[in-house]
Amino acid sequence: MRTQVGIIGAGPAGLLLSRLLTRHGIDSVVLENRSRDYVEARIRAGILEQHTVDTLTAAGVGDRLHREGLEHSGIHLQYPGTRHTLDFPALCGRSVWVYGQTEVTKDLVAAQLDGGPPLLFEVSDVTPEDVDGDAPRIRFTDADGIPQVLECDVIAGTDGFHGPSRAVVAAGAGGARVWERTYPYAWLGILADAAPATDELIYAWHPDGFALYSMRSPKVSRLYLQVDPDEKIEDWSDDRIWDGLATRLALDGWAPNTGPITDRSILPMRSFVSAPMRRGRLFLAGDAAHIVPPTGAKGLNLAVADVTLLATALVRLLREGRTDLADAYSDTALRRVWRCTHFSWWMTSMLHASGDDFDAQLQLSQLRRVCSSEAAARELAENYTGLPIEA
Amino acid sequence: MRTQVGIIGAGPAGLLLSRLLTRHGIDSVVLENRSRDYVEARIRAGILEQHTVDTLTAAGVGDRLHREGLEHSGIHLQYPGTRHTLDFPALCGRSVWVYGQTEVTKDLVAAQLDGGPPLLFEVSDVTPEDVDGDAPRIRFTDADGIPQVLECDVIAGTDGFHGPSRAVVAAGAGGARVWERTYPYAWLGILADAAPATDELIYAWHPDGFALYSMRSPKVSRLYLQVDPDEKIEDWSDDRIWDGLATRLALDGWAPNTGPITDRSILPMRSFVSAPMRRGRLFLAGDAAHIVPPTGAKGLNLAVADVTLLATALVRLLREGRTDLADAYSDTALRRVWRCTHFSWWMTSMLHASGDDFDAQLQLSQLRRVCSSEAAARELAENYTGLPIEA
Repeated sequence: MRTQVGIIGAGPAGLLLSRLLTRHGIDSVVLENRSRDYVEARIRAGILEQHTVDTLTAAGVGDRLHREGLEHSGIHLQYPGTRHTLDFPALCGRSVWVYGQTEVTKDLVAAQLDGGPPLLFEVSDVTPEDVDGDAPRIRFTDADGIPQVLECDVIAGTDGFHGPSRAVVAAGAGGARVWERTYPYAWLGILADAAPATDELIYAWHPDGFALYSMRSPKVSRLYLQVDPDEKIEDWSDDRIWDGLATRLALDGWAPNTGPITDRSILPMRSFVSAPMRRGRLFLAGDAAHIVPPTGAKGLNLAVADVTLLATALVRLLREGRTDLADAYSDTALRRVWRCTHFSWWMTSMLHASGDDFDAQLQLSQLRRVCSSEAAARELAENYTGLPIEA
Repeated sequence: MRTQVGIIGAGPAGLLLSRLLTRHGIDSVVLENRSRDYVEARIRAGILEQHTVDTLTAAGVGDRLHREGLEHSGIHLQYPGTRHTLDFPALCGRSVWVYGQTEVTKDLVAAQLDGGPPLLFEVSDVTPEDVDGDAPRIRFTDADGIPQVLECDVIAGTDGFHGPSRAVVAAGAGGARVWERTYPYAWLGILADAAPATDELIYAWHPDGFALYSMRSPKVSRLYLQVDPDEKIEDWSDDRIWDGLATRLALDGWAPNTGPITDRSILPMRSFVSAPMRRGRLFLAGDAAHIVPPTGAKGLNLAVADVTLLATALVRLLREGRTDLADAYSDTALRRVWRCTHFSWWMTSMLHASGDDFDAQLQLSQLRRVCSSEAAARELAENYTGLPIEA
């Protein structure tokens, strides 16, 4: 087998990259070690920045998003006694969309299988090779257990935090540098068949810990509670979850809507950056190179931004033979990665109870400031809705 | 002896309060345990916010400030390779003034001794009593060693972090709550007879640690280096200090001016807030209730803001017999205290090397953001130049 760009991983990053390349006449093959059902069922992020919506729309996979997605013009910031609305269009001229990553993946998979480049599920033993030369390849075992070799011009490692690509970059002559921060809390997230009792997401600071009220559709709520990272999901009954949400989200005359909980899990919180995002002809994008905590909803959007840059760089490299954008890719992408890493850390630090009373007062002072100052509110809004993608 | 307001401490807070009260026809007596020479020689902060300049001017002690003070329209933020100027008037319509706290104190002492209310230096054993009733008093021993009693309507504790007033508030029926943060670094500060080589202050991030280039006059520079809190000043020769400054402030084609070092000291960095700022007829203001680290230059300005609020509240209480502003004083003052505590913590956290590589990348991302985003720059400028005093 041979293709121009071998793409490892069929998450939104890899699938979108394949699609963007196709639209510029560049061949690709996408390899995924999971099944289609698994990939389409993963519950992940749900907030799309403006540039993500624009990119998906331009890539021809925006129809259902525009039909079923919910445009949101702000968020509510809450601390005891106060619920303040940030109006994003008024602050920065942009908005965000609620549309689950799961749905984005389904749309991308459907488009890929509808006449798009090859997308191979349930492959195994994926190994990028000879990435320092001009003719790299990916060895893998296909779904039938047959060893295969995919010869490529370029390999894209969009294989997430646990994929094989990052280690290949780190094993290069230049090595890699890693920055990591583990937070002393986690999110307990639920999906509930309950109409959202709020128009916008509610980010709530509470002495007991952070809570987030979000939604996936007019009938499905997605709610989160800050918990200890070593909490066991079995210890959280429906009643305990709803009680915690009711307490932390409480506001006079208002309460969350409850309903059957259809999914529950505990999400660890971590910041992670690995640099560079390239070794020779292997380029990393998305979670393969960086992880942000979920506060601020940057993970998926950052992957889309990486891929947008990478697609442009690869088109230039493979169609024009010019290496400038490919050579700049890692540094350019990392500037946005650090901006989003900082913003996610900042939102996380402002909203989560750390057990330290001084921190709590700093958080409340910061929240009051964001709720009373145009400059502070705009700084949050510009970052939350997504900064323009740097060329 | 008897007066309306007994003021403990002849720093800028106590002296300014006395002056503001005098202008509204209210008597006061200021007690100070140090000598005039000592008080007038203490080297402290040097940046005055707009509201501080306005307050001192309105209080009739702005003549020399306007003659000798240096109006500054911004600061330089620096990280390796970049020196960026924040233009405060363009960002928020305000500026700041460079005029040493020492000079403010001299002006206030001179005004007080020129027909103002009594100002007693070198008193000792100062003890506020019966602050829960309507007739509190201050016992003290005067400079001649004679025990005295000052009967008052109100006592103002402007006696700094080490004065007796805060403990009296804490011993009240409601107690007091304290928040404290000690930072893992200190500032080595010098005064040098050297013309400043910069128009505006330079706040410099550097892997070796923070450096600050400021000035006290066209011929005197005030420079700071981040050092470990347990550094000994004897270990810092002139050469070592200048070398450190040259390294951390380095920019192509530019170097600090050197000159004889006339003062050197190591300043600890601490955030501290004690609440409430009142017990009965005893009111705290300035360092007696709160300490901020020097980054951001909030300490003196916050004391002036406290005293501005307190003067208004005491005029209302003592002239009109209305308690509303006196009752609101602690909460109102503390909102600004926490805003400034947060800002000082934020500036400190952005600029000081902590030894953690992840922190360093967050700092650089934050600095790049402040240097490229109007919203982020304005948020710094509004806080740095001083928010309006809340009524």
